[in-house]
Amino acid sequence: MHGGNILRAQKLYGLTTFIDLSANINPFGPPAGVWTSIQQGMVDIVNYPDPESCTLRNALSKHLEIPTDSIMVGNGAGDLIFTIVQALKPKRVAIPLPTFSEYERAARSVGSGVSYIPLGAEGWAKFKQWDDGLWREFLKDCDLLFLCSPHNPTGSVLAKDLFEQILRLTKEIGCRILFDESFLDFLPDEIRQSTRTYLEMNEHLMVLYSLTKFYSLPGLRLGTVFAHKLLLASFDQYRDPWSVNVLAQHAGIAALENLDFPDDVRQKLRESRALFYEKFKRCGFSNLRLWPTSVNFALIEVLNHTSGELIQHLGRLGILVRDCASFIGLPGDFIRVAIKDIFVMQRLIEGLKTYYFKEEQ
Amino acid sequence: MHGGNILRAQKLYGLTTFIDLSANINPFGPPAGVWTSIQQGMVDIVNYPDPESCTLRNALSKHLEIPTDSIMVGNGAGDLIFTIVQALKPKRVAIPLPTFSEYERAARSVGSGVSYIPLGAEGWAKFKQWDDGLWREFLKDCDLLFLCSPHNPTGSVLAKDLFEQILRLTKEIGCRILFDESFLDFLPDEIRQSTRTYLEMNEHLMVLYSLTKFYSLPGLRLGTVFAHKLLLASFDQYRDPWSVNVLAQHAGIAALENLDFPDDVRQKLRESRALFYEKFKRCGFSNLRLWPTSVNFALIEVLNHTSGELIQHLGRLGILVRDCASFIGLPGDFIRVAIKDIFVMQRLIEGLKTYYFKEEQ
Repeated sequence: MHGGNILRAQKLYGLTTFIDLSANINPFGPPAGVWTSIQQGMVDIVNYPDPESCTLRNALSKHLEIPTDSIMVGNGAGDLIFTIVQALKPKRVAIPLPTFSEYERAARSVGSGVSYIPLGAEGWAKFKQWDDGLWREFLKDCDLLFLCSPHNPTGSVLAKDLFEQILRLTKEIGCRILFDESFLDFLPDEIRQSTRTYLEMNEHLMVLYSLTKFYSLPGLRLGTVFAHKLLLASFDQYRDPWSVNVLAQHAGIAALENLDFPDDVRQKLRESRALFYEKFKRCGFSNLRLWPTSVNFALIEVLNHTSGELIQHLGRLGILVRDCASFIGLPGDFIRVAIKDIFVMQRLIEGLKTYYFKEEQ
Repeated sequence: MHGGNILRAQKLYGLTTFIDLSANINPFGPPAGVWTSIQQGMVDIVNYPDPESCTLRNALSKHLEIPTDSIMVGNGAGDLIFTIVQALKPKRVAIPLPTFSEYERAARSVGSGVSYIPLGAEGWAKFKQWDDGLWREFLKDCDLLFLCSPHNPTGSVLAKDLFEQILRLTKEIGCRILFDESFLDFLPDEIRQSTRTYLEMNEHLMVLYSLTKFYSLPGLRLGTVFAHKLLLASFDQYRDPWSVNVLAQHAGIAALENLDFPDDVRQKLRESRALFYEKFKRCGFSNLRLWPTSVNFALIEVLNHTSGELIQHLGRLGILVRDCASFIGLPGDFIRVAIKDIFVMQRLIEGLKTYYFKEEQ
């Protein structure tokens, strides 16, 4: 079960409202301007969307300093992953484990073989230094490599020098990279660097960027991919031309116009993340281990292997967390929690306490 | 170029607003209730959409008398066509000609061979009676047949007895049918019959139904397919789980609640269609032939082969029509016009007059 399925939770726990920590969405809502753009753009639902999302692509181009013709917009990042894989039809893909399940699902849908790059709960921190032989082994016979940084579900970041080595090796062996930066905007300034700056010199690189998560628009669907214009043009024939609805286009344009929003969100998240880690530590849960993160979600390891019970306990209190049982390649027993505002994180701490007091009494 | 691309027309003709007869959308706008549903549902854009579109599927089930588990919702009919073809990976498809170009594009995207069923400007009216040998020839080696009725671009209707013969033959030879009923709701009562009533006894039949056109929601994207529940379940792994945005789900539910809307739309269209045909006839254009239609669009044949000039003339007057040059298998020179309200159709008549007076002086 993916995160964010409130309807299923309502049936499961008999409640109507939840604190949803199962989906990794910016908790502070979309930037000012988005609501008005939807109100004003509503009249356009009677017309087909612009199939080329021209105005939105121009806005992205200006905002991210990428040529407009190197930008493709899709109905969410998931839609683009399927389109890209169906267009490239890779013989074999390499996928880090654990990770977002849609990479493998998309690859299997065109019959690709799948190789895994085992990360575990450490995420990219597992690779301290470059090991050429190891990576050649990982990428053997692969023509597409999925990378994801900040990494879901660990929140870890792929180091710049490691990425550059991977970029060089994949170029040498003729393997494309689809680099998923859906959570990039959540990173603090000092470590936030997009791989899109490598696009010009590396035609085998594609960078996936989502407006859904940071701009808090998951219900509207909006994702983008950056790549060489000829590669993007070749994807067109594998998808419905009108996939991006008019209100998503309007909202995306309005979201990018609000220049104060990104720093504001990062500042608020930094505070609530720090407070959560501090309070969690003070509680001294003997059976829980909170793993470090750089973004808006974190893994909690349940050392006595009772995550199933814990998830249900929290669910009955109206708190949804992400069960990690469906993540392949995560040895141990884990839940993933989104970092939201400090009041919500306090509710989670209280929920964990009521469970562990009961257990430890 | 597909219909409905206003942005491109703005660049081409230097105007900002157009009467758009190039896209076959109900011109009277969405049912009352849709605007409010979007206003009220706007807060849900911060949550992921229900991947199963449960509430909308239940509403469709009640409205159309189909079991909920035989209904799949997609991001427009185009999205579903690609998903279905990518799931079924047909070896060879049969496609009527001319028709909506996305059938062939989707089939080519998975490397299917393509056979054509030539209809010409008559559409389905070409087949007066069943010819078993001819249809066996059409369907030779095919495992998927696309049918479209009311037929785009001719507006013709596939006769019930012909359909039943096709249904029998395809069952016998193991060929599935994807029957596109996107324009069904526009048909008058006396000839409006959905093939979805055949679903229960025919597991090789899939019926495509669009809420985009009749309910005037093309900007939101909303399409559905009806088929056996096991077949639908097998499509799931070929698509992004969150393809249907929350506002499309809200609008679709609200649209179906307005029970007076369908008859009202059909009545208004019947009147303006009748008036348009009568006025057109009275003008006595010697170089134009208006073909009969049962729905909200019609073909006009340009007998002296000057459709390019005519389209530009109308464009400069702010009237967009569909250039049929991109329809393969339509011998002759055609434009397609949507039927809208009587004032708009009067504008089209005037536009045609200014062109042909100039020509004939």
